[in-house]
Amino acid sequence: MPSSIIFKAIPNGYPIIGEHMEFVTREIDIENFPLADGEILVKNQYLSLDPYIRSKMRNPEIKANLSAYKIGEVLDGYGISIVVKSNNKNYQVGDYYVGFIGWEEYTHVPANAVSGIECLAKEISKYKVPESYFLGLLGMPGMTAYVGLNKIGRPEKGETIFISSALGAVGQVVGQLAKIKGLRIIGSAGDDSKIKYLNEELNFDGAFNYKTCNIDEKLKELCPNGIDIYFDNVGGEILDIVLNHLNNNARVVSCGMISQYNSKTPYGIKNLFQVIKKRLLIQGFIISDHYKEMDLFIKEMGELIEQGKLKYKEDIVKGIQNAPEAFLNMLTGKNFGKVIVKIF
Amino acid sequence: MPSSIIFKAIPNGYPIIGEHMEFVTREIDIENFPLADGEILVKNQYLSLDPYIRSKMRNPEIKANLSAYKIGEVLDGYGISIVVKSNNKNYQVGDYYVGFIGWEEYTHVPANAVSGIECLAKEISKYKVPESYFLGLLGMPGMTAYVGLNKIGRPEKGETIFISSALGAVGQVVGQLAKIKGLRIIGSAGDDSKIKYLNEELNFDGAFNYKTCNIDEKLKELCPNGIDIYFDNVGGEILDIVLNHLNNNARVVSCGMISQYNSKTPYGIKNLFQVIKKRLLIQGFIISDHYKEMDLFIKEMGELIEQGKLKYKEDIVKGIQNAPEAFLNMLTGKNFGKVIVKIF
Repeated sequence: MPSSIIFKAIPNGYPIIGEHMEFVTREIDIENFPLADGEILVKNQYLSLDPYIRSKMRNPEIKANLSAYKIGEVLDGYGISIVVKSNNKNYQVGDYYVGFIGWEEYTHVPANAVSGIECLAKEISKYKVPESYFLGLLGMPGMTAYVGLNKIGRPEKGETIFISSALGAVGQVVGQLAKIKGLRIIGSAGDDSKIKYLNEELNFDGAFNYKTCNIDEKLKELCPNGIDIYFDNVGGEILDIVLNHLNNNARVVSCGMISQYNSKTPYGIKNLFQVIKKRLLIQGFIISDHYKEMDLFIKEMGELIEQGKLKYKEDIVKGIQNAPEAFLNMLTGKNFGKVIVKIF
Repeated sequence: MPSSIIFKAIPNGYPIIGEHMEFVTREIDIENFPLADGEILVKNQYLSLDPYIRSKMRNPEIKANLSAYKIGEVLDGYGISIVVKSNNKNYQVGDYYVGFIGWEEYTHVPANAVSGIECLAKEISKYKVPESYFLGLLGMPGMTAYVGLNKIGRPEKGETIFISSALGAVGQVVGQLAKIKGLRIIGSAGDDSKIKYLNEELNFDGAFNYKTCNIDEKLKELCPNGIDIYFDNVGGEILDIVLNHLNNNARVVSCGMISQYNSKTPYGIKNLFQVIKKRLLIQGFIISDHYKEMDLFIKEMGELIEQGKLKYKEDIVKGIQNAPEAFLNMLTGKNFGKVIVKIF
């Protein structure tokens, strides 16, 4: 029987399976499923799990870019699906659909559910890459890396970039793109096997396990000329330490603060005076503001992939019932690459 | 006998007169004063006291844009002087000199002491304003306001700007320039008489005494549509609270962090996650990077002054012996407008 993961209660700290996220099953009659004008019914193939989802598990009174989940609602995320029933002239049965789906096997997509990345559905069959790449390297995380690095980081050949969560969905793309542009690339991750992968497979110039190292000393050792761009996926203490290693006119690309999403008391950043001392720029962004550049992104990335210049490490989990655990593993850094749930 | 204020010891917290800054007198024989090629001897008229001077009273091992003072050295700052002896073809006796001078009556200016604002000396007699304005409204603080507001703040008509230390040397210019551009201008200061002046003389749309108000509630009341630009002169707790009131895509002009310069333990900023949530930009700058725009600045400001559109509140203290106390008063917010020492 088709199944879903629903949002059961607002977590304080890490969500707990059963308490905040619950597996439920429900009947679905595909043949007789009613569709209003413009609506489609899709069978979900791949679901992307990303840290921002945690930020939607909040008290709905707290306003933010992304709406909060309602209690009892199915959790959602970007996905790749196949249309199984359509009342929308743009979709035929059998077409790919790329956009927001539920953490479930079948999703009823409303007419107005425009996520801005639907155009990717037309691209999937053009590229000789796994379909799931359209949720990672060629999807929202890849584009986040591309936009953040180029528009905020503004990399120059010979500069040094430091990337936290460097083997994450975004980080690994940032590192490879920066390397192609001639930067010295240094990364951190929370596991020795990830460090080995960064050094040996992704050609990082240096990488360290932030859980077992003295971060300050490692940055001194690996970035002897300071840091020009910090691509920040974690926030908190690492950001605070990095501020002391930045060069004049350095840029901090504020992409994520995974260290803070589950924290009951936010970390207090003490070195922000460096912003003045070193004329720093710290800038956040939301990828949906930049979807108009999707074509350019796909074109440039497609060329690099064809030239064999980009790798992408995925951590694929099978079965929607395993999504909550995979999500928790990602929040605690136990994933190894971009987390994808293969549903069918 | 001519006198100077010298740097006596590195303060931890607020500097103490006698302990960290000392008044000394010394002989000077102007007529026989030896000048190497390119050097001049100047008689100091006005000395500007600015918060950045505190940041030079540090352990010289801590690197920063501005060099640390050496023990025994005369303190310095921007000043307006009259050349009394010259071995430099660009300066005749009687000319104005604008640039770095000591906290003293006569300064021996070395040939290489280029501060980037010498060009102001030629402008002084062109404008019908007090000479001292070339240390404030038409000097480094005015230009800091102009560059920070326009290049980082990028103000748009109808937006709301909040300015901390709004009656300071920089803040009062920011407010007036923003008002001319059609923004709602809200400011804070640490004294009720300053609030009255902001409201009544500088036409602020709202102002509050941060020492006696609930800052969060005041911002809610005075900025009902949120804040689009925060011109930050103070850092610390006010910055932390403001982060929660910023609109999407707001800009924080990091101009100063006076709340932190004398603090023994830096304040920990807890709301930096707003940078991601609201796509914020936080940027620091140093005015000397922008001196190439000095001509444009003088031209635009000169026109506004001629049209009677700009006021400038100065807090003028007489006598070099009173500079240390005036400096301390500024650090603790007891000044009322731009602090200038009138030396002769």
